[in-house]
Amino acid sequence: MIPPASWTRLVTSLLGLPGVGPRMAERMALHLLKRPSSSEELLTALHHARETLRRCARCGDLMEMTEGGHCRRCLDTNRDPSLLCVVEDVADLQALERSRAFQGGYHVLGGVLSALDGIGPEDLRIEALMERLAQEPVREVILATNPTAEGETTASYLADILQARSLTVTRLAYGLPSGAAIQYADELTLSRALEGRQSFSLR
Amino acid sequence: MIPPASWTRLVTSLLGLPGVGPRMAERMALHLLKRPSSSEELLTALHHARETLRRCARCGDLMEMTEGGHCRRCLDTNRDPSLLCVVEDVADLQALERSRAFQGGYHVLGGVLSALDGIGPEDLRIEALMERLAQEPVREVILATNPTAEGETTASYLADILQARSLTVTRLAYGLPSGAAIQYADELTLSRALEGRQSFSLR
Repeated sequence: MIPPASWTRLVTSLLGLPGVGPRMAERMALHLLKRPSSSEELLTALHHARETLRRCARCGDLMEMTEGGHCRRCLDTNRDPSLLCVVEDVADLQALERSRAFQGGYHVLGGVLSALDGIGPEDLRIEALMERLAQEPVREVILATNPTAEGETTASYLADILQARSLTVTRLAYGLPSGAAIQYADELTLSRALEGRQSFSLR
Repeated sequence: MIPPASWTRLVTSLLGLPGVGPRMAERMALHLLKRPSSSEELLTALHHARETLRRCARCGDLMEMTEGGHCRRCLDTNRDPSLLCVVEDVADLQALERSRAFQGGYHVLGGVLSALDGIGPEDLRIEALMERLAQEPVREVILATNPTAEGETTASYLADILQARSLTVTRLAYGLPSGAAIQYADELTLSRALEGRQSFSLR
C-alpha cells in the first residue's frame, strides 16, 4: 500500500534539507502534521524570512531588508577595519561572533571552491573581496574557511591571489579542540597540534 | 551583534522539529534561504499536506481527504481481518508495511502512555481500538509498540485490558537486529535474545 502522495511529497521536500535522512524526514513530517501550531509557525517564519532578509552588500551577512545598504556590523565604528575575516558561510560568521574573540570585519564567500559541485571562483564573492581590499584599510586577512578539503583548497586559492598585495594573510590555528581527549583525536589533528605547538608561556 | 529577528525566528521554528539541534537548524535555515526553489517546494508541500491529509476513521493512518471514510488498506479485502497490529505512530506502520511481512489490519494509537509528558489512555486511540475489537472479527492483536520504557508500559496496559476478551495478544519478538555484531550488542538485547532463543530447525 503506497502512502498518500501529499505525504510523500512533504517527506521528500524535508529530505532535501541538509543532514536529514529518510527516517528523520518522516518523523519531522509527522510532527508538523500532528501539531498545526508548529507547522503554522514554520510556514510563517520561512515566508517572513524570505520576504525580509537580504545580504549585506559589503560583508554578505544576512540583514533585514528595512535596514540601509550595509548591515549594522559593517556600520559599527567600534570594530577594527584593519582586520578582515573571510568565512565560508553565515553560520561560520555567527559561530565566530558567539566566541566574542574577534572584533574586525567579515567577508562571507557564500561557499567553497568545489570541482565536484562545479563551484568556481566566479560563484563565490571573491571579486567583492578584492574590491573591498582596494577600498578599505585592511592590513590583515584571516582565512577562516573550514578544515575540510574544499575549505583548504579555497584558502590556498585566496592566499595565492592575495600574495601580491601588501597585507598579512593568516589562517585559524589547527590543533586539539577544547575539551578533547588526546586518545580519541585523529592522526591529522594530532600531527597538526604537534606542528603548531606553542611555547608554554604563551597562555 | 544580534542576528536579524526573522533569521532567529526561522532557526527557532526549525529547532522545534524532532532531532534538530541548534547548528543543524542554522544549516537548514541557510539552505532554505539560499535555494528559493527548495523553500518554495517545502512551503507548498507542507501547505498541501495539511490541506489534503486526514486520518482514517478506522485505523488512524494518514489518507487523502478525497478518499472515502476509510483508507484503502482498511477497505482492501485481500488483507486478513483476523489479525490486528497496534502501532504507536504512522511511521511505525509504514516501516512494517515496507517489510511486507504483515497482511492484516493496523491500529494507530497516536502515541504512547507517558506520565512525564502527561499522556494518559484517554489521549490515545484506545477507545477506538475497543470499538473495533467489538465490531471486527479480530482473533489476534499484535502489540507492536517500540521497545522503549513508554512503549513497554503502553503494551502492558493494553495487554491488561485486552486479557478479558477471547483473543490472542502477542508482541513483536525481541532479539538481535539483523546484521548486528554480538560484541557490540547491549546487555538487555543479548539477555532478551537468549530468553527468546529459538529451535534451529525453525528457519
